[in-house]
Amino acid sequence: MIVDLKDCKKAVYINSEETVLEALNKEGILVYAPCGGKGDCGKCKIKIKGQISPITKEERKILTKEEIYKGIRLACKTYLYGQAEAEILEEQFTNESKGKLGAKRIYAIDNHIVKKVVQLDSPTFENGYTMADAIKKKLGNVHIGLKIMRYLSHHIDYTKDTTFTLYKDELIDIEYEDTRDQIYGIAIDIGTTTVVCYLIDLVKGVSIEVSSMQNPQVGYGADVISRINYTLENKDGLEILNKRIIHGIDELIHKVMEKTKIEKRHIYECVLVANTTMTHLFLGLDASSLSRVPFNAVTKEIIIEDAEQIGIKNINTKGKVVFLPGIAGFVGADTVGAMIAANLINNKDIKLLIDLGTNGEIVLSTPKGNYACSTAAGPAFEGAKIKYGMQAFSGAINQVEITDDLYYTTIDQKPAKGICGSGLIDIVSELLRVGIIREDGKIVDTEDLENEKLARRIIKNGSQKEVIIAYENETQKDGYIAITQKDIREIQLAKGAIRGGINILLKVAKVKINDIDKILLAGTFGNFINKESARRIGVFPNVSMDKIISIGNAAGEGAITALCNQTVIQEQAEVYSSTTKHIEISNHPDFQDEFLEGMYLK
Amino acid sequence: MIVDLKDCKKAVYINSEETVLEALNKEGILVYAPCGGKGDCGKCKIKIKGQISPITKEERKILTKEEIYKGIRLACKTYLYGQAEAEILEEQFTNESKGKLGAKRIYAIDNHIVKKVVQLDSPTFENGYTMADAIKKKLGNVHIGLKIMRYLSHHIDYTKDTTFTLYKDELIDIEYEDTRDQIYGIAIDIGTTTVVCYLIDLVKGVSIEVSSMQNPQVGYGADVISRINYTLENKDGLEILNKRIIHGIDELIHKVMEKTKIEKRHIYECVLVANTTMTHLFLGLDASSLSRVPFNAVTKEIIIEDAEQIGIKNINTKGKVVFLPGIAGFVGADTVGAMIAANLINNKDIKLLIDLGTNGEIVLSTPKGNYACSTAAGPAFEGAKIKYGMQAFSGAINQVEITDDLYYTTIDQKPAKGICGSGLIDIVSELLRVGIIREDGKIVDTEDLENEKLARRIIKNGSQKEVIIAYENETQKDGYIAITQKDIREIQLAKGAIRGGINILLKVAKVKINDIDKILLAGTFGNFINKESARRIGVFPNVSMDKIISIGNAAGEGAITALCNQTVIQEQAEVYSSTTKHIEISNHPDFQDEFLEGMYLK
Repeated sequence: MIVDLKDCKKAVYINSEETVLEALNKEGILVYAPCGGKGDCGKCKIKIKGQISPITKEERKILTKEEIYKGIRLACKTYLYGQAEAEILEEQFTNESKGKLGAKRIYAIDNHIVKKVVQLDSPTFENGYTMADAIKKKLGNVHIGLKIMRYLSHHIDYTKDTTFTLYKDELIDIEYEDTRDQIYGIAIDIGTTTVVCYLIDLVKGVSIEVSSMQNPQVGYGADVISRINYTLENKDGLEILNKRIIHGIDELIHKVMEKTKIEKRHIYECVLVANTTMTHLFLGLDASSLSRVPFNAVTKEIIIEDAEQIGIKNINTKGKVVFLPGIAGFVGADTVGAMIAANLINNKDIKLLIDLGTNGEIVLSTPKGNYACSTAAGPAFEGAKIKYGMQAFSGAINQVEITDDLYYTTIDQKPAKGICGSGLIDIVSELLRVGIIREDGKIVDTEDLENEKLARRIIKNGSQKEVIIAYENETQKDGYIAITQKDIREIQLAKGAIRGGINILLKVAKVKINDIDKILLAGTFGNFINKESARRIGVFPNVSMDKIISIGNAAGEGAITALCNQTVIQEQAEVYSSTTKHIEISNHPDFQDEFLEGMYLK
Repeated sequence: MIVDLKDCKKAVYINSEETVLEALNKEGILVYAPCGGKGDCGKCKIKIKGQISPITKEERKILTKEEIYKGIRLACKTYLYGQAEAEILEEQFTNESKGKLGAKRIYAIDNHIVKKVVQLDSPTFENGYTMADAIKKKLGNVHIGLKIMRYLSHHIDYTKDTTFTLYKDELIDIEYEDTRDQIYGIAIDIGTTTVVCYLIDLVKGVSIEVSSMQNPQVGYGADVISRINYTLENKDGLEILNKRIIHGIDELIHKVMEKTKIEKRHIYECVLVANTTMTHLFLGLDASSLSRVPFNAVTKEIIIEDAEQIGIKNINTKGKVVFLPGIAGFVGADTVGAMIAANLINNKDIKLLIDLGTNGEIVLSTPKGNYACSTAAGPAFEGAKIKYGMQAFSGAINQVEITDDLYYTTIDQKPAKGICGSGLIDIVSELLRVGIIREDGKIVDTEDLENEKLARRIIKNGSQKEVIIAYENETQKDGYIAITQKDIREIQLAKGAIRGGINILLKVAKVKINDIDKILLAGTFGNFINKESARRIGVFPNVSMDKIISIGNAAGEGAITALCNQTVIQEQAEVYSSTTKHIEISNHPDFQDEFLEGMYLK
């Protein structure tokens, strides 16, 4: 569920057994409910729409007709069936709850970065203090590294109140203003194609700015293998790609700072996730082993370094860079981030987490443990290798429905320019439903169709059949937009890889499809596709629709969660990294069979 | 006692209760003595001269006349009364003992730096290893920092035997040759005037090369206060002095490497001591607080940093720099080093440690704890502020005796050029003994002397009396060399400061002069002065001569000891640093009295 909190939006995962009130409270969104959720007080009003439980008798007693009409419900009586959007009401920000909710502690915050304001006792002959002693007398046995010691030796002032910034037990900065309300961090998700940067207020626990850019390495190769090849074929290749991403991220941080007028001095930490190749390139590690059997990484452990050592300049000079741990050569820290967002620790039911970006990772979470694999499925769904494919920009055909004819919508309602991932899935699904393509993916002959409008959409271009989606006069380009037999094969290959992966994981974990309690969709793919279409063509197993839930950019959410609360690093990230069983599916004896079977559209 | 071990010399401290054999064994110099020191086997022969116990009946039975004539003794039957020099005989390097003595483990070695040769298991689909996993599987849970990880990612070779170098639990280097016998370290004593550098073989535990240079900061001020002033008066002053000493040390390390043909890659650690000001300038810390009341340091704690961070280039790029902790603003890591060399931990008797270089530090060690102070006494004894004063170079008058006339010796038997510290002490002592100067330091009138030869040495230069030490025809300069009334006052001031310091420490610790068991002299001063002369004029308390022992460059010895065995850092250095009671003598109510009293020559 997406919750609108005025100054930010937040995805909240809600399972079917809990009320919206319970779920929000668990996430730290403190909705005012003095009766404790019995439905008596009528205070926990929330504006909500989407796949939710019907209104109850109790609610009808408390809510006015106008409120019901507006979509207001009691959070304590509302359950979720599928996707929904909610808005915290202004009145929730008043009275007793104001302080609590005003703080909007959306992410649980630990205090691994704290500021303390104290005045030091001056050294005297009697106390015999060194400067370091005077600090430790007030702050306890903190670590003072040489670099900050040098700074302190010039700047310490025993006559003034001083704001000391501590990262864990390390002193990292001092200021002579009270800046206790200014502690910020950055969470970054380095995708192969897109880099997303979140600026997080680590006092309030809220995301205050988001910015993204194309990965500046894109010009050196669209996918991970071509980037690795660039480092192998060019002497300074690794250094170039490393500098590109480091500088790109520095610019992205600068952008969010500019927008928010926050000083770089007050940004103390940067937590990152990425796939394993992007991780290697960011850290300056030779990634060549990822391109050859057995695709082993240099390291999958957590990396904690001074920002300066990494080369990140737009945060505090003594700030830290934390790269979350990964799982395997093609299941990286981004998957660990998604697992954090999905909270797969000590999982009591069975969940399937599918994160499809340029690369695709699948995690099967069971009470016996977590299993993960990677698939080379992503690019097709992002429009790559598809004749009229494009990314989800303005003019992309994104929804398709067939009734008496084929109808579609485009992003921003602009004339059609191409087809994006969600449109592709819809097209294949609808063509399958009405019989224009068969389960084996073959486009039928015109003669086999009764509906003339549809029949005329099937044409031959050379030796290849195509189905026209947008006629020439509807497009903002020269010519029509169609889906080709080859495109359908590409989608079948991608889908085959995903289903093959899922089925191998189910097999290894000895789990049956019927045992799956939830399918969690993460990444761009999960956010935009029509889940029903995807299910129909068999991208994921045939479970009831209410079990399929989008959880947004889960990798980035995981990075934010770890940034805000580092107990998550020990209690989740490192556990996922070290205990998740990685299955190299291409090496599994059943993979070929599962892959071929998975290509069937059913 | 100085022990000559062919490839190095080693100072060994021997207390009066133990035999030379016991003391050598305790220091790790394994003299072959199969009878266990009973005097039966006659194997523990050693060549020794100096203040030693007379030859015993047992020794006369075993040793030949020729051996006795050569100065050979049985180490198990010989006790030390004062200073001595010993030489381990060639025959000790043979037979069963060869291996042991051949190793000459003079300094106890721990294994905080170790090399292991292993071949890694290649990553496979089955083991799922990352490179880091493969290393940890063989080496245990070692820390692999990002910098070495980058190097490893390019250089690891699973097909070969690999030498891994570990610093404590951190992996710092790999090589594809077996270099287990090549582990070296550097110990450095940064004096205000002189910097001494020792190259230590950390496998064998021996010092294999020593080199020294003038402190390259000397041109910016002769003493610590003028160097601090330079940093205050010049914008880049601190940076300049910092770079000077860092680069100077790098050159000094290069010099010992050149001489020994040892690669810088195989030098893994550099342990340093210095006075607190030199420490601050080396570390790049603002030292200005050391020049004003209450003379507090920025830090006195141990500093452990990557050599690269400090700027030291001529050791392994992942090597460490360790700066031993200090005690106070004017009692630095060099004093801690001297305390390590003197082994003042859990001291059961009462020892007075006096380390006089350009600055002077005094430690009183008692069973109740250690007390320390600093004095501004050093420069006079190094020839500064003395009209014909000079350092202990060729041509310096270094020993003086008065019989029927005044006689002197010079360093290298060259015509006299000036007077060095040991000569000054002798002169004042002898002039006092024969009555040319009185206890209050005043030079008597010519008429008061019966001896004409001596009487004609007293002349008047302007209003000031002088005593001629070398007549014009004896010197290698224009004119005579004399000691002036003002020179004697300078020495009285210096001596007054030292005695004042000693007496305040005795007073604070409630120790009487008669309770002192040993006076340990460290530094240049301690090595060269005539202790009897120094005692006569009252530089140190009037104890019997056998209690006064020179222990050489104790600060440097302490640095070497800590380099070889880091348990010494926790068990001694940090204990001395945190528990030694620092007495700021200038602030003690009795100091003026003690200082004035101490100026009397008695």
